[in-house]
Order: sequence, then structure tokens, then C-alpha cells
Amino acid sequence: MTPSVTENASLIVIDWGTTNRRAYLLDENGNVLDTRRDDRGILNLDPKRFAESFHEFIKDWRDKPVHELPVLMSGMIGSRQGWHEAPYVTCPVRQDDLVSALIPAPGAENCSIVPGISLAPASTRNDVMRGEEVQIFGAIGQSGRDSGILCLPGTHSKWAKVENGQLVDFTTAMTGEVFQVMRDHSILGALMNKTSAHDKKAFLEGVDAAAGEGGLLAHLFAVRANGLFGRLTESAQTDYLSGLLIGHEVRSLSKMYAADAEGILVVGSEELSALYGTAMTRLNLTYQHIDGAIATINGIWTLWSARHAP
Amino acid sequence: MTPSVTENASLIVIDWGTTNRRAYLLDENGNVLDTRRDDRGILNLDPKRFAESFHEFIKDWRDKPVHELPVLMSGMIGSRQGWHEAPYVTCPVRQDDLVSALIPAPGAENCSIVPGISLAPASTRNDVMRGEEVQIFGAIGQSGRDSGILCLPGTHSKWAKVENGQLVDFTTAMTGEVFQVMRDHSILGALMNKTSAHDKKAFLEGVDAAAGEGGLLAHLFAVRANGLFGRLTESAQTDYLSGLLIGHEVRSLSKMYAADAEGILVVGSEELSALYGTAMTRLNLTYQHIDGAIATINGIWTLWSARHAP
Repeated sequence: MTPSVTENASLIVIDWGTTNRRAYLLDENGNVLDTRRDDRGILNLDPKRFAESFHEFIKDWRDKPVHELPVLMSGMIGSRQGWHEAPYVTCPVRQDDLVSALIPAPGAENCSIVPGISLAPASTRNDVMRGEEVQIFGAIGQSGRDSGILCLPGTHSKWAKVENGQLVDFTTAMTGEVFQVMRDHSILGALMNKTSAHDKKAFLEGVDAAAGEGGLLAHLFAVRANGLFGRLTESAQTDYLSGLLIGHEVRSLSKMYAADAEGILVVGSEELSALYGTAMTRLNLTYQHIDGAIATINGIWTLWSARHAP
Repeated sequence: MTPSVTENASLIVIDWGTTNRRAYLLDENGNVLDTRRDDRGILNLDPKRFAESFHEFIKDWRDKPVHELPVLMSGMIGSRQGWHEAPYVTCPVRQDDLVSALIPAPGAENCSIVPGISLAPASTRNDVMRGEEVQIFGAIGQSGRDSGILCLPGTHSKWAKVENGQLVDFTTAMTGEVFQVMRDHSILGALMNKTSAHDKKAFLEGVDAAAGEGGLLAHLFAVRANGLFGRLTESAQTDYLSGLLIGHEVRSLSKMYAADAEGILVVGSEELSALYGTAMTRLNLTYQHIDGAIATINGIWTLWSARHAP
């Protein structure tokens, strides 16, 4: 790293999750000067060592003579199991509401945690997010719109509805985790080849199967029955299961949020977003992909800029 | 056991499954003279020792001077991983079709295996059963009807449609196994008290939640979110999850098979059938419980009697 990199820096953004953390060094225009990541998610760290591990992670970026560079962190680091609990802000939420609810991290100068969001206590449903809230505001900003339906695929996928710049509702689907436990801990895994190359045909068969009668609990057994009768090879079963689950998620949630012709904003990694895009196209839904890391950076940058606005 | 018990015996029925086996000694009218069970399911035995273990299991029942008592076996013992594969009979299936397809067990005199059933290759779905087929014909016989919708709850629940004495269609739902893997291998288990007494209120809340928007993948996360906000105690979460999954199964499958006012025949253990009955009542469905073991005995007895009919 050249000395000039930290010279122009103005903010450090950290997306600190359950299993990993990613850091971005931004210049005074919000452009990325440097990035890094490691596997010190909150579950991989001694809770007493959050502050120490934080300093180690970005020490060289903050090694300035005059002052400590400001840091904003989002994700599970603000949960009860994290460094310091940042209580949920309840829906509906504007970006300004997050700014007002920033929580200082104990033992670190000029470093704050972005709170998560929950549904209002009066809602018929309960739901929570931490980390996705900055991606949602970042993605909405990038899209040039102030309303839309967003899908953030993952272990716990989030679907969100934004109206006039306000996050008004969201729902979590356990798609990624159900995929993992069914593959690794159920009878479905017994016949599977789990390491084969992606089989798009099998994935689309799974997406289509989600439309059938009987519901997800019945559709899951078809993975095995199709395998027993040679309709799905061992290498095709993983992708069929993936398509089946993503198909169920996209069908149910796009219907719940009445995704319209303007299209769904899919915010995530290139690989996972491509799978969701394939399923959405199959289901005659339009979508636009926004990189999840860029959405995080843009979301936190906008939040930071708003904090300094007059 | 008194000597008179084997004197009046005419048939031995064995329900030989994946983890357990149960045997019933029947008199010449199909009444039960004696029963026994152990944990020597096909997965708990060396495949080379099926014949030997079979003889050990019922040796005293067959110890007659003149001839060996006939034995009929159903369940996974007839699968590829069992003693000897009994190829699936394809739907539609009458009880007589099972009689014609009985397979002799190698190395055991006068002992046959009842085949399983699969959907026809031309069907849009694939599905299989082994063991439930005799329960279905047994339960239909007990009900005094020749048509009906049946639900056989379990690790892999079966729903079946019988028309004019013929099994015409069936579907497997992975309800029991999904419950186990989500409880034992997902994040939902982290907050659960898994050993608490049954909480009927929480079970019914789960059944009701299955009616909500968003689909099963979203409803699953509500188990955790409701726990985080104290709407479900740790001891209530297991029953809520159970109600949610059984609610999804019963709603989807009763709709698929258009269960009508005549009611669903629920065939299984008292405990599990009571849970399904509670869910069905909540969903305004009528049902009649038939004991699973008795359905097995009656099904095989009728099958055996048909074999000897002129």
C-alpha cells in the first residue's frame, strides 16, 4: 500500500457478519481505496476480544498522526452476541432514522455501529435484519428510484419493500439454510454428488417443480424419488434441490410483495444473484442485479454523508 | 407363552422397517395371539444375516413338528438394501395385485415379502412406498368403505387416494424429517428447549401460521423471530415448529386430494395421529383414526386370505 492511500482516506466501512468480516477504505468521494476480508465473524471470536481484533484488522489504515479515521460498522457485530448491542429500529424506517440511532463502539475512538431493523411490535409477524438495511438503502440509491421490491439472497434471504425512500416491510426466508441442512443432514444427501459442476437444466426443473401441487414438504421427497428412478442423476440432484427451494422462495415472496413490471432489485454476490435471476426469468419476473458489497459501501457512505449534512 | 398359543396359530406377520421390526402371531381368524418387536431394522443388521436374524426373531413361534408356519413380511425388508428386492407394483393397484407379486424370501421356507408401490412411469411425479400399502388396504377394509383419502403421518408421511378398492395415487411429504433436521441442525434449534411437555397452544399457533403469506421458507424463520421477541418461549418453539410443518402438510395435501366431508382416515400411532387430528380439526377437516399396527395386521391378513381364496 502506498502512503497516498491513507492520505486521501475519509471513512472506513466494515461489514461484520456471523462468519466473516469485510472492510473498505473510502476516499473523500466515497470511492474505494483499499479492501480486505477475513474469517473473524462474531462466532469465530472471543467476545472479550472484539475491540482488540478490530484494531488489529485495520490498524495500518488508522495509523495517522493527527486523528483516527472514522469507522462505521454494520451486521451482526451490533447484535446481542456481538461487540455491543445496537437496538433494532422498527419499520417504517428512513435512512435518517438509522443515522439517529448509531451506537458508539466501546473502546474504539470515532467508531459507530449501524442498528438493525425489526418489524413494529404491532405487526402480525416478527422479523429482524442486521446488515441488509444498509444494502437496501444503498441499492435503492443506486437504482435511481425511491420505491421498489428488493431480494437479498443468502443463508437467510431477505425480501424488502421500499416506498418513497422508506423501508416499510420485509420478510426473511430460510432458503440457504434449508438447502444446507437438507443436503448435509437428511436422506436426500445420501444419493447426491455434492461437488459436481452446475447443472442449469436440473436447476430449472427444480424451479418448475415448485409450481406443482402438494407443497414444499412433498416436493422435497421428489428429489429422492426422481433419483431412485433415474430421472435425476446424482450430480443433478443438488441443483434440482437448489432450484426447487429458490423457486419456492421467489414464487411466494414475489407474490407477497406484488413485484411488478419495474422489476426486482437483486442485491448480492454475482454467483447467487445469477441463480436467482435465472429463476426469476423462468417465472416471467424482471430483475436488476446490484452487487452486494457495492450496495453496502454506498449505503454506509450515504448514511455517513447524511450525518454530516447541515 | 402357553403351548396352546402356537397350536392355534396360522400366520406370522412381520412389519420390518428401516430402524425397527414388529412381529404378530395370528390365529386362524386373524386374531393376535402374541406380538414382539426389536430394533433390528434393515439399517441395524449385516445384510448377510437377514435370514439368520429372521429365524432367531420368531424361532419359538415356528417350532412346530409338522410344518413351518407361513410368514408374510412388509416394509423396507423388500427394498434393494433389504433381504431380497421385491420390485414395485405400479399404480393403480388392487390388493389382488399385491398377492400376485409376493416374492419368496431366500433361505426361509414358506416366507414371502409384500412388494412396495410406485407411481406409474408415465406420471408427471415419481413417488414410492414400502409398508404403507398394506396399511392402506387394511385401513380401507376397517373403515367399511371402498374409497377414501388416507393420511399416514411419519418421518416421510404418505397421503393416498383409494377409489373403488384401488389405490390410484399417493404423495410423500418429508414433514417428520424436516422437523428433525431443522430442530437438530439449523439455527432454529439454538433457542429451543427440546424436552419440554407438549404445548398445544403453541402447536395451534404454528398450524395457524401455515396459512400466512410468504410460504414455508419464510414461516420457518418466524420460529426464531418470535423467540427473539418473547412471543414464543424456548419450550413453546418445538411445538410451534411441529404445528407449522404439520399445518403446511395437511393444508397442501388435503387440498391436492380434495378431502371431502367423509373425512380423512389417519393411520398411525396414537400420539402422532392425535397431533394430526388436532391440526385437521383446526382446519375444519373431519378425520377418523385407525391404529397403524392394526391396519398392518388387517391388511396382511386380508391379503393372505385372498391368496387362499378359490
